[in-house]
Amino acid sequence: MRDARGSIAVRFEPIGRHAHFSQPLTVLDAAREAGVGLLSLCGGLGSCGRCRVRLQSGDPSALSETEAKVLSAHEIAAGYRLACRCVLHSNATVYIPSTSRPQEQRLQLAGEEQPLALAPPVVKLYLELPPATLQDTRSNWTRLQDALGAQHGRRLDSPDPAVLRELGPALVSGRWRITLALRGAELVHVEPGDTTARQFGLAVDLGSTKIAVYLVDLLTGQTVEARGAPNPQVAYGEDIISRINYTTLQTDGTQVLQTCVAQAINETVAALCSAHGLQPIELLELTLVGNTAMHHLFLGLPTKQLALAPYVANVVEPMHVKARQVGLTAAPGAYVYLPPAVAGFVGSDHVSMLLASWIEQEGTYLRVDIGTNTEMSLSSAGKISAVSCASGPAFEGAAIECGMKAAPGAVERVWIDPATQQVRLITIDDAPPVGLCGSGILDCVAGMYGAGMLNQRGAIQAGSKGVRVGQSGLQELVLARGGNCRELTVTQRDVERIQLAKGAIRSGIEVLLDASHITFDQVDRVILAGAFGTYIDPLSALQIGMFPHIMPDRIVQVGNAAGVGAKQMLLSIAQREAGERLARRMEYIELTVYPHYPRFFAHALRF
Amino acid sequence: MRDARGSIAVRFEPIGRHAHFSQPLTVLDAAREAGVGLLSLCGGLGSCGRCRVRLQSGDPSALSETEAKVLSAHEIAAGYRLACRCVLHSNATVYIPSTSRPQEQRLQLAGEEQPLALAPPVVKLYLELPPATLQDTRSNWTRLQDALGAQHGRRLDSPDPAVLRELGPALVSGRWRITLALRGAELVHVEPGDTTARQFGLAVDLGSTKIAVYLVDLLTGQTVEARGAPNPQVAYGEDIISRINYTTLQTDGTQVLQTCVAQAINETVAALCSAHGLQPIELLELTLVGNTAMHHLFLGLPTKQLALAPYVANVVEPMHVKARQVGLTAAPGAYVYLPPAVAGFVGSDHVSMLLASWIEQEGTYLRVDIGTNTEMSLSSAGKISAVSCASGPAFEGAAIECGMKAAPGAVERVWIDPATQQVRLITIDDAPPVGLCGSGILDCVAGMYGAGMLNQRGAIQAGSKGVRVGQSGLQELVLARGGNCRELTVTQRDVERIQLAKGAIRSGIEVLLDASHITFDQVDRVILAGAFGTYIDPLSALQIGMFPHIMPDRIVQVGNAAGVGAKQMLLSIAQREAGERLARRMEYIELTVYPHYPRFFAHALRF
Repeated sequence: MRDARGSIAVRFEPIGRHAHFSQPLTVLDAAREAGVGLLSLCGGLGSCGRCRVRLQSGDPSALSETEAKVLSAHEIAAGYRLACRCVLHSNATVYIPSTSRPQEQRLQLAGEEQPLALAPPVVKLYLELPPATLQDTRSNWTRLQDALGAQHGRRLDSPDPAVLRELGPALVSGRWRITLALRGAELVHVEPGDTTARQFGLAVDLGSTKIAVYLVDLLTGQTVEARGAPNPQVAYGEDIISRINYTTLQTDGTQVLQTCVAQAINETVAALCSAHGLQPIELLELTLVGNTAMHHLFLGLPTKQLALAPYVANVVEPMHVKARQVGLTAAPGAYVYLPPAVAGFVGSDHVSMLLASWIEQEGTYLRVDIGTNTEMSLSSAGKISAVSCASGPAFEGAAIECGMKAAPGAVERVWIDPATQQVRLITIDDAPPVGLCGSGILDCVAGMYGAGMLNQRGAIQAGSKGVRVGQSGLQELVLARGGNCRELTVTQRDVERIQLAKGAIRSGIEVLLDASHITFDQVDRVILAGAFGTYIDPLSALQIGMFPHIMPDRIVQVGNAAGVGAKQMLLSIAQREAGERLARRMEYIELTVYPHYPRFFAHALRF
Repeated sequence: MRDARGSIAVRFEPIGRHAHFSQPLTVLDAAREAGVGLLSLCGGLGSCGRCRVRLQSGDPSALSETEAKVLSAHEIAAGYRLACRCVLHSNATVYIPSTSRPQEQRLQLAGEEQPLALAPPVVKLYLELPPATLQDTRSNWTRLQDALGAQHGRRLDSPDPAVLRELGPALVSGRWRITLALRGAELVHVEPGDTTARQFGLAVDLGSTKIAVYLVDLLTGQTVEARGAPNPQVAYGEDIISRINYTTLQTDGTQVLQTCVAQAINETVAALCSAHGLQPIELLELTLVGNTAMHHLFLGLPTKQLALAPYVANVVEPMHVKARQVGLTAAPGAYVYLPPAVAGFVGSDHVSMLLASWIEQEGTYLRVDIGTNTEMSLSSAGKISAVSCASGPAFEGAAIECGMKAAPGAVERVWIDPATQQVRLITIDDAPPVGLCGSGILDCVAGMYGAGMLNQRGAIQAGSKGVRVGQSGLQELVLARGGNCRELTVTQRDVERIQLAKGAIRSGIEVLLDASHITFDQVDRVILAGAFGTYIDPLSALQIGMFPHIMPDRIVQVGNAAGVGAKQMLLSIAQREAGERLARRMEYIELTVYPHYPRFFAHALRF
């Protein structure tokens, strides 16, 4: 069937776009013409399998031989097709799973910031006071309390001297008209005149390599602007363990790491505020999330015990700390709220991510935040259990022969033709390749396995295209060769690193499933969060067995969900309470003492 | 009647000392032989009147002619005698009023530190925790809360990061045995092992020229040691107004004054602690009292409005401030408690003094704390009213031609023989006289008036002994002449300064009485506190009419009652509540708007 005009009407879900075509064409061509993002690594040869789509309605061409080879029986039964092979002759509705969408669209659609009832912990109130006279010499504070009681029926706690300092001058310059910023019964800021139209806050996702800072309008809930800054603690140790070592070796090490991170946040805040005509003193409330080590260093807490078994945190409970106590510039009485963590290695960032992606009465969800340390939680039937596994820095491009960070020139996508073992590279900014970032090395190992260049134990197969014996005497694959760029190789050791990492993650998942008596089939959704989880190609992760096999559209990449959760907890007390409830419900499973964990791990190492 | 041995038994009250004499003798001689302190300025000539005593029992010699002249009819009727003229022939009980006792004994007896039920705001608890294992990875804080709940049925508020920093290391070095210092539900300090036997606190009386610091044992209530230190703010302004001016002229002036006073307290604390084998970190709680300007500068609050009509304080309510926020060294989470003030010029030091000298169901009491600013309160029939008057710096030896502070060589006592106009000087440490301190100038003016050298309006009478025309063309009295010491004079302007000061105080008293519809006869007790109130000769104050005439034994000099009150509020929450209740009951009367105040003042200027 065609539409009224005799053309073919195609609807693309979940973005909901319509397009009309006069001639039959493949889904891939239709998407391209309609400007709908759809991945294709092999350029429409039918071999990469990245352009999987699901036909929701319509009457397409019959399943091709290529598709029958690339797609699983389950996928075929569920209506999956390859967009480059599936031809539309009549009206159709095509669902593009997130795994087949390019990066930005994947996040845009998956971000799913839920509409939020605003109930920020700090609110502003405008107040007019009767002037002081010789007949009425009440103190400024008494006068304020009396007026607040009469005009708003409220009474404040004993004042913070840092805020009280503002009151007298504000009364003078505002001619007895002032605006109060109240956090419950506590005064956190006073301004002359009526400034109730300006109410701002800050959400911070403090990562070990990157700090994401969100300037938020508390009245609208909108992000005024978000900015990222490198975490300057990197100068004292690339990974967390080195930083912890630094604090134990240097007498004031904790203080140094605390101060530099506060300063980095302050500088970002200053730039953000200046760009939007604000003063940092207008920030009425802050929320900060991070892994437990980042959380501890931010509060200047000792971290030594985090690095020694049994890896005990100082505190996992939610904290309310004066911004000035941790060296942050904000309103004089402003607080930083730090949501709860779960254990030494499952931090408030995971709780925040959980909150941001939480759906009441959800089914069985697996949430994964991949990093040097990978935190995962499984929620099912009201129970949430969490594990943390040492996946190592390979996914961040570290400890890999030609590894690098995700920067221009980094190979971020690799596709190896299963038939010809031909390698295709995509670099960031299309710059000449200088190294492999995490998603690139993952693609590469997945591609090598898919093309038969690795066996199940991970050994590089001699004689494969581009494989040679390296200087170490072991096999290696040459990805790019000399010329005006560096020679890029993937060595046997690189493959082993990825194998260890994926083994750690896979075995963690197996423990979560085992402890909850759930099979992977029962998992409704796998939610990938964080920088790496956002940039990887989920099909590559599936291919090397990082996760058990699952329908691609059950995988959701949610980007920086920890940051989204931090914003939610900045904007709503109810969200803070929800986060705290989630954290209390989470049960931490220590992998190293889980029965038969070594067996799970050994099994998970295989491709 | 004599005693069993045939000797004369004399009992001296209120110190309760007994002595026996074989021969009849004067009360003055009896006191000297018995080692009981009794003033005598004229050396037993019967002319200075300082040796007034009251015969409570016994049958002394008849009233002499001298006594009939020096004592008032009221005093004679009440049994008063001059000790140098009253001869004892048989057993007697002699009451020595505080006005006739030398300095130290006056204070010793009047100090009357009431026994206190100890209930300090911070208490220590010893706790044993189960060690962390891989099977029990609860955070340190969760572990602590769980044990505290199980062992003591208590639950703490969210921890202060500064205190939490101590917990991990204390658990390690104390091998899971720790001592907590708790302030209600807040943890203020953690120490390894059992340190419950050591609990210390600090009380501070922050005067504008002197800081009194009391190191107190919270378990016994005893003062370990008290030390004084000069207030370093003097370098930025001798008097309060100059300091306030400094803060308004210098951008960081308030900060400078805040920091220097905190530093002075810290240095005194360091010395005190070191002398008694303590660390400043062992100070679990602090209490600080002072006038409103000192209170504001200590908290870094703006003081400009205190110097401008209508002289409004920022806050008069009680404050609980972290010691570290105001730069004091103490336990990481320790608080400074600042009791309430009443108004811009009636500070927490007056409230503290009121508390220290408070007697439930007391009669009508007038409390006076003389300084550059004199605070006074009248309590009667459950009502307390307070005034503050600008008595100027004359009583502190400032703004007086030959004035100086109470230091060695300062004339502290002057007696002028009413009959011969002969001057007698007593200096501090018996050093050669170099100037007049407050009590000396007061004595001098009182003596001049008593010897007819001043008329009622305060004019120095030409032709009096030692009086000459000075360089200014006005009369002056030469107290001491050249030689190896400076020439000391009291000028007509000096007399006027004292007149203004006493007029301010007297008119304040008159307003207090007028507002409460009370006559001075109904005042049961006049309580003099503070440095100057402690050192003056109350009879001199009576002589110049600073107070209306009153029986000398109704005058009590209580020394640093503000410091005593501060200690009480350090040792007991109930005392804090009592002080807060007293402050709420106090009604401040602004003198400048009191009806007919100028008339009161004009009248009070006369001798």
